Amino acid sequence: MRYVTFSLPGDSSQHIGIVEKDQILDLSECANFMGIQIPSTLLELICKGKSFSDMLARTIQEAIAGKNSNFKSYPLSAVRLQAPIPRPQKNIVCLGLNYKSHMEETARARGREIKIPEVPVFFTKAPTAVNGPQDDIPWDPNVTQQVDYEAELAVVIGAGGKNIPRSKALDHVFGYTVLNDMTGRDVQQKHLQWFKGKSLDGFCPMGPYLVTADEFGDPQNKRISLRVNSETKQDANTAAMIFPVAVIIEALSKGMTLESGDIISTGTPEGVGLGRTPPEYLREGDIVETEVEGIGKLRNRIVISRSS
Amino acid sequence: MRYVTFSLPGDSSQHIGIVEKDQILDLSECANFMGIQIPSTLLELICKGKSFSDMLARTIQEAIAGKNSNFKSYPLSAVRLQAPIPRPQKNIVCLGLNYKSHMEETARARGREIKIPEVPVFFTKAPTAVNGPQDDIPWDPNVTQQVDYEAELAVVIGAGGKNIPRSKALDHVFGYTVLNDMTGRDVQQKHLQWFKGKSLDGFCPMGPYLVTADEFGDPQNKRISLRVNSETKQDANTAAMIFPVAVIIEALSKGMTLESGDIISTGTPEGVGLGRTPPEYLREGDIVETEVEGIGKLRNRIVISRSS
Repeated sequence: MRYVTFSLPGDSSQHIGIVEKDQILDLSECANFMGIQIPSTLLELICKGKSFSDMLARTIQEAIAGKNSNFKSYPLSAVRLQAPIPRPQKNIVCLGLNYKSHMEETARARGREIKIPEVPVFFTKAPTAVNGPQDDIPWDPNVTQQVDYEAELAVVIGAGGKNIPRSKALDHVFGYTVLNDMTGRDVQQKHLQWFKGKSLDGFCPMGPYLVTADEFGDPQNKRISLRVNSETKQDANTAAMIFPVAVIIEALSKGMTLESGDIISTGTPEGVGLGRTPPEYLREGDIVETEVEGIGKLRNRIVISRSS
Repeated sequence: MRYVTFSLPGDSSQHIGIVEKDQILDLSECANFMGIQIPSTLLELICKGKSFSDMLARTIQEAIAGKNSNFKSYPLSAVRLQAPIPRPQKNIVCLGLNYKSHMEETARARGREIKIPEVPVFFTKAPTAVNGPQDDIPWDPNVTQQVDYEAELAVVIGAGGKNIPRSKALDHVFGYTVLNDMTGRDVQQKHLQWFKGKSLDGFCPMGPYLVTADEFGDPQNKRISLRVNSETKQDANTAAMIFPVAVIIEALSKGMTLESGDIISTGTPEGVGLGRTPPEYLREGDIVETEVEGIGKLRNRIVISRSS
């Protein structure tokens, strides 16, 4: 299944739906579907557990196959897509330096020694940074002068847990989405720890869909790419992750409980603006497209939003 | 006012209350108090805004003064205190290296150069780490071998905002509480970024009270101390912060929206286990008391909780 959170023109209320070809079937229009109570957000749906979401998915698929779904549906082009989880219940956990090629470009740019970390490098982004898959990214030049992109595959946890072994880790994944880990490089460096430079408002576009783990398949064999104004800047494969998804979940859950709906972004490959010679930071009007094979793409424009 | 979140023996449900001498007045017992609808959590109370909380505080104080409060009350010793906000709505933002003396001991212990950061160093702790002011701190020796303490003054945001100037910053503070920023030093160092070593389950005791800003007064003139098994390990004054609370709020809110109920912990003074020669990490059965003048103290015991 490909889940979405969306709103309709002129109405900010959030709907959840299923993508079926170029249509969105509106789950929010059927509070009760074939006897199943429909949650009002994807986060709630995930929190209801795997047996619930499996049953819901099966029922929807049967209804679609039988052409008797009676869903209210909209063309994808007619709605405003939002991040699948527009308001996460805690910060988004991100990985730094999870592709060797990006680690090398960063070390070069920062004049540091190349050293592969022995365990994943985790930091977080504030939930207030979340942005939609097609929304503008606000840039305040009074806050940062070095706006950069990072194409990433993000994992959404289904069943929570603690001390999850890597052999069982993928059973804890509800699905996957695309995340652009936007960064104010000057803010990131100045504050030493990365949280602040990663958490500016609007600096976390996500979506367009939350693709369930069964439909997505192997997370370690997907093309991941990013274009600025149609020019390819990042183009790699998730096979190149230093720490694959199962190892990330094992490491993160060691001594720390993961919960349903938690979002973990798995790091970016080479090609970011910081790593270029000279560095290429984003400018007003730039269009950033972030894509992961099997999910879809984000398309965000950089717009000036200056504080007084 | 001194707000608390608490539960009663044999009943895990959360109540909110007011501390009045050695008694807790149970606000949860009066869903409607003198015509004011009482929220069910302190987070909700804070989110209702300053005019609401001011009116509530005034009404309660008048009722207490007039001896006609009709509150159900309990002796402080008869309840289980919880963290004032047992489940924050996002990660807790913490400061690293905000007292020069602690910065120096850390640099010495890690063999690094002493360099005062030009802006605050922000990282986060997961909301799943939150622990009560009198609860045990679980220690899993399979996860960390270097359990350390950090006494801190924590700020709870009242009115949210973005790009808040330091001159107005304290107007955005609802109140203050005590926070022990427990850390697995080996985990903190191994993962490079600090989030993971700071976010182990139970590693964020908070409380015992949330003291409103008007009652607490100047946050830059309070004694802050920590004892392990009654032996003083940290003893300083918040006057020594490199970045005072108003500057922290200004820096954090630059380009990043703060929300009602956000928790910001302001860093620890010298005397942590890592900084001692040789380092002194906590052991099974140790009692850690963390105190800030004008609020009260946390008292937590370290207990082994080994993963299989």
